[in-house]
Amino acid sequence: MIIVMNGKTDNTDVEKVIQKLHEMGHEVHISRGERRIILGVIGDVENLASVPFYAFNGVEEIIRILKPYKLASREFKDFDTIIKVNDVIIGGKEVVIMAGPCVVENEKQIFETAHQVKALGAKVLRGGAFKPRTSPYTFQGLGEEGLKLLARAGKEANLAVVTEVMSVNQIDLVAEYTDIFQVGARNMQNFVLLKELGKIKKPILLKRGMSATLEELLLSAEYILSQGNYEVILCERGIRTFENYTRNTLDLSAIPALKRLSHLPIVVDPSHATGRWRLVSPMAKAAIAVGADGLLIEVHPEPKSSLSDGAQTLRFDTFSQLMEEIKPIIQAIGRECSIPSESELERIKK
Amino acid sequence: MIIVMNGKTDNTDVEKVIQKLHEMGHEVHISRGERRIILGVIGDVENLASVPFYAFNGVEEIIRILKPYKLASREFKDFDTIIKVNDVIIGGKEVVIMAGPCVVENEKQIFETAHQVKALGAKVLRGGAFKPRTSPYTFQGLGEEGLKLLARAGKEANLAVVTEVMSVNQIDLVAEYTDIFQVGARNMQNFVLLKELGKIKKPILLKRGMSATLEELLLSAEYILSQGNYEVILCERGIRTFENYTRNTLDLSAIPALKRLSHLPIVVDPSHATGRWRLVSPMAKAAIAVGADGLLIEVHPEPKSSLSDGAQTLRFDTFSQLMEEIKPIIQAIGRECSIPSESELERIKK
Amino acid sequence: MIIVMNGKTDNTDVEKVIQKLHEMGHEVHISRGERRIILGVIGDVENLASVPFYAFNGVEEIIRILKPYKLASREFKDFDTIIKVNDVIIGGKEVVIMAGPCVVENEKQIFETAHQVKALGAKVLRGGAFKPRTSPYTFQGLGEEGLKLLARAGKEANLAVVTEVMSVNQIDLVAEYTDIFQVGARNMQNFVLLKELGKIKKPILLKRGMSATLEELLLSAEYILSQGNYEVILCERGIRTFENYTRNTLDLSAIPALKRLSHLPIVVDPSHATGRWRLVSPMAKAAIAVGADGLLIEVHPEPKSSLSDGAQTLRFDTFSQLMEEIKPIIQAIGRECSIPSESELERIKK
Amino acid sequence: MIIVMNGKTDNTDVEKVIQKLHEMGHEVHISRGERRIILGVIGDVENLASVPFYAFNGVEEIIRILKPYKLASREFKDFDTIIKVNDVIIGGKEVVIMAGPCVVENEKQIFETAHQVKALGAKVLRGGAFKPRTSPYTFQGLGEEGLKLLARAGKEANLAVVTEVMSVNQIDLVAEYTDIFQVGARNMQNFVLLKELGKIKKPILLKRGMSATLEELLLSAEYILSQGNYEVILCERGIRTFENYTRNTLDLSAIPALKRLSHLPIVVDPSHATGRWRLVSPMAKAAIAVGADGLLIEVHPEPKSSLSDGAQTLRFDTFSQLMEEIKPIIQAIGRECSIPSESELERIKK
Repeated sequence: MIIVMNGKTDNTDVEKVIQKLHEMGHEVHISRGERRIILGVIGDVENLASVPFYAFNGVEEIIRILKPYKLASREFKDFDTIIKVNDVIIGGKEVVIMAGPCVVENEKQIFETAHQVKALGAKVLRGGAFKPRTSPYTFQGLGEEGLKLLARAGKEANLAVVTEVMSVNQIDLVAEYTDIFQVGARNMQNFVLLKELGKIKKPILLKRGMSATLEELLLSAEYILSQGNYEVILCERGIRTFENYTRNTLDLSAIPALKRLSHLPIVVDPSHATGRWRLVSPMAKAAIAVGADGLLIEVHPEPKSSLSDGAQTLRFDTFSQLMEEIKPIIQAIGRECSIPSESELERIKK
Repeated sequence: MIIVMNGKTDNTDVEKVIQKLHEMGHEVHISRGERRIILGVIGDVENLASVPFYAFNGVEEIIRILKPYKLASREFKDFDTIIKVNDVIIGGKEVVIMAGPCVVENEKQIFETAHQVKALGAKVLRGGAFKPRTSPYTFQGLGEEGLKLLARAGKEANLAVVTEVMSVNQIDLVAEYTDIFQVGARNMQNFVLLKELGKIKKPILLKRGMSATLEELLLSAEYILSQGNYEVILCERGIRTFENYTRNTLDLSAIPALKRLSHLPIVVDPSHATGRWRLVSPMAKAAIAVGADGLLIEVHPEPKSSLSDGAQTLRFDTFSQLMEEIKPIIQAIGRECSIPSESELERIKK
Repeated sequence: MIIVMNGKTDNTDVEKVIQKLHEMGHEVHISRGERRIILGVIGDVENLASVPFYAFNGVEEIIRILKPYKLASREFKDFDTIIKVNDVIIGGKEVVIMAGPCVVENEKQIFETAHQVKALGAKVLRGGAFKPRTSPYTFQGLGEEGLKLLARAGKEANLAVVTEVMSVNQIDLVAEYTDIFQVGARNMQNFVLLKELGKIKKPILLKRGMSATLEELLLSAEYILSQGNYEVILCERGIRTFENYTRNTLDLSAIPALKRLSHLPIVVDPSHATGRWRLVSPMAKAAIAVGADGLLIEVHPEPKSSLSDGAQTLRFDTFSQLMEEIKPIIQAIGRECSIPSESELERIKK
Repeated sequence: MIIVMNGKTDNTDVEKVIQKLHEMGHEVHISRGERRIILGVIGDVENLASVPFYAFNGVEEIIRILKPYKLASREFKDFDTIIKVNDVIIGGKEVVIMAGPCVVENEKQIFETAHQVKALGAKVLRGGAFKPRTSPYTFQGLGEEGLKLLARAGKEANLAVVTEVMSVNQIDLVAEYTDIFQVGARNMQNFVLLKELGKIKKPILLKRGMSATLEELLLSAEYILSQGNYEVILCERGIRTFENYTRNTLDLSAIPALKRLSHLPIVVDPSHATGRWRLVSPMAKAAIAVGADGLLIEVHPEPKSSLSDGAQTLRFDTFSQLMEEIKPIIQAIGRECSIPSESELERIKK
């Protein structure tokens, strides 16, 4: 950590800061310039995180050098985390496609979708039972009934399932049915929830908050990891910016950046990020080219009658086309997928 | 609601949209131009909120005319909501000052603060017992012990108290001790929490999320109101922007804007917004001038040893100075306060 | 300057950086930790600004300690800059009101406005002759004809005038007619223009760019100052954020922040920032309470037929009301103004 | 255009708006609901752009239906614009690589770079002679000397050249040497410059401003097109957001979005967007996968001694690796490039 003080600060004020650092058990390097005095503290400064140095006279800036997260960092673990869910491997050579409706609506919808996305190469079935909706007046999901349908559809189609948990008191119930817990963007800093999810034994797909920095995302992952659950999948789903043509701005540079900062696998959700179905396929291709370990895609048998987020949802035919389009990219970067051959895809379409 | 379609859309595709609107029970006004076809639906279109019109061929834009919130709107209730907590009136003529430390740390700290802010004119004592912290490695509050200290200090100094609740399973516990529940910015869209808070009988101070629009803030208020709790106090505490000199950017235009859109009282938190104690007083003055019904100010006997957010925290002397500075502004706009006379303030300082 | 290197960096790579610093004439303080190596350079490091240290192996972060601007900084000049234009003093005790239409449209409009705003207490007449418009198809101003009308109106009403200059080749022409040059937000980083304005002898009102940080604003001021023109007036006019209820988000914390960082006077433009006339008066009050040295207000005899920005423009009666409302705030903070007495204002209205 | 009025508006006030619309030559469709009155105007409403309807009593919202740009829109021209510069085709099947240093520094640097990037498959040489720099104290380019070197190096290596023009008074000079004019992000709304560039006969590479929406970018293109120069190349180079790990946030969804809205070719600059050389290659791959027509890449023989933006600049070996990595993506999406074979690349490296 580096503490920058004004060059005109009284010696007694400089001493107060140095004394505080000594009290906390740190050695201090001092560099005095005409306009600034710089105090450097090397090593593990965790115990200084809560000391409000800005409240000391003369202090102008506090600069942290070490990252505030540990278990999530590449420095802590320099090989990639690989997560196995049933027979699906996330973070390995295969680009894993997770697909399904925004919300589980009824048996027909979720079973049809499960079989179709499975046939087209998806490995995980997504579908919401508890939905965080901006307005209290829109459909909020089927609850346990939705979880049951999702789990049965996943089992029948031989797909792992992922679904959102919104609150600590839903964890036990959701755990009965899901393979992977999803934490939504709006709950990325619901620290009570994160801590409890750190105590269970299932992978957590953690979505980046709409205005969360990469550091904040990794600190939220750290909440889970620090409780003993090491299976965290990061998810980029778009950040909030001034641009409003798209619902959010998909920050694809986050993928190579997070790969450098962390060992955790990263998937991308181009459906929520863009909010427009025509942009889902191009952004899916870009996400794969940039190094994403998987995709989260909204698919519905009939988006026009979907009860949520229909504007960004693919039909079976457009999803099939997406799979056709991403396949050559996956191959071009030397990764693998379970997407059937072109002729097989043709057969399925008919 | 207005649905804009491309002028070249097939008649059958236009008919499909119209038919859907008829099915949902709506009359449609049609205006055909060369480049655009416009379908207007007048009246209560709540049941259309979930229909994904973007998934219909030819649809280019959906424009909602009515606001998606109701109970929170001025149209629903055109006089100001006034909230009484013990003998404190929020949303009335008095500008209510809520002050106290970020976190309750120990008996001495909270009792000293309580007496001091009371003497200087504050009406509500703030202090966290459960703290949402970005990093899992920083101090997270004393929990129930903190609540007890806060409640006792409030009672002794004759101040109402406000403290944060982070999770549904903390509600009962917090309710035993607090007069006002605070929902933090990170939980503004924790809808499960909002719904439960809608069922209790105490006021809720709802902080605007760091990247929440005014509409989203009002929809979150609507979650609480729609469950039967009409006592919601809105709080502007800064939004996240590209500017990083201040921690967040305090959006003061939100105050007159929300006053037009809603009947709920609004307070401002200049401490968290700026993250720098030297900016707290100027922004407090601006907040009052623009029409805020109250302020939330961080005060601590000794910010240098504060366990959280010391950089933005006022000492008793700087808080006293703030009170002195805001008083003439409060008078200038014709509102009231409980700040003692200048000579009385001088006496307290000694 | 501080250069942070990875703790595992080869000694030869660390030496390369140190050698480069020596070559540039600097002494280096080295602190070695397990995870990071820190190189500190104290003093004037201007000549390092262009050295791309990130391109050296092992370098993880470069941290500048000194501010990159000089002449604009409080450290360079610790008393406030006061600018005199005719008999108007900007940056002194008086809060200076600059008012007028967005665009000069015709003689009647600008003369009527000049007399009216003068009577109500304004000291500077604003009005555009060259208008930067987002679309090439909207009215772009009257050019020289507009300048002439503005200058004549100003002279007749005894008001100084301010108008925008968009390009180097307009400087001479504009100089003939204006007292103060305005640089618009879109030109804040038009460095060619800034440099030329640094060579003239009239004050420059420099608007903050829509996505400019405070540091960038001060660096743009530095372009002007470094050419010898020390009369720069900074102007906060709203930044671009995700919020779209208002056109931009007026960042009032910029005022006390800039007052700490710089000695230059600062005015606020609440009209462009909000884009809604009903918010102009509340934000004007807040701007004054927070310490602005002046206001820029759009006023037009008949906003309904204004050729530009009518939505945010005040009529004479609403402008008169604004003046009435800001006066007690100006007095409350101990500053001065030229706003007539209440009874005088009443007389003018009739 | 749609004008939304409050349902309680006086009939006379509604009539005033209708009358204004009639005056301007428009027919009006009226839909009356209990809470809102909606006035729809179909067709060409260009002459309404400057009418400030918000200034009329009762008006709550103005909604434009038609896009404000024309010549730049797909509706105006539904096939892709292809631009030929010497023998380079931009917007065709080939993904065009533009590479070179941020700033032309000396003969050796620019000639070496020209030959090297040519050998590796680039078609256009970039290099700044006039550089917009945030600080007045950093290197601002060699001016005409730089232009001369750039043009000679381009000619010798048989590459077209692109360089930035910052001001109207530089146009003639720059025109003598360059094949393509670049307008930098900070000048995207320098409308005087755009208009003049609309009158010349060379292609313009127009960079998106740091906080410009897609609509604003297309309106800036429209300034050029409306003066008769139809050869505009759009360039996405990152937008300003709250995230600060990268210098800007590269908005790749802008590419498919702009492709839908406009017929103009689009290139991507991953160097300036990320500000970190390690992210350039991943983002280049993503840009191609999403449909960019070309890339702008910073390359320098020795980034460590580069006078500008060294942190994001590739060396010849890392640029060679980028070309190797993007080639399979280009092929996977069925486009073409001039990148040599792997064995040829190996030979060049030695």
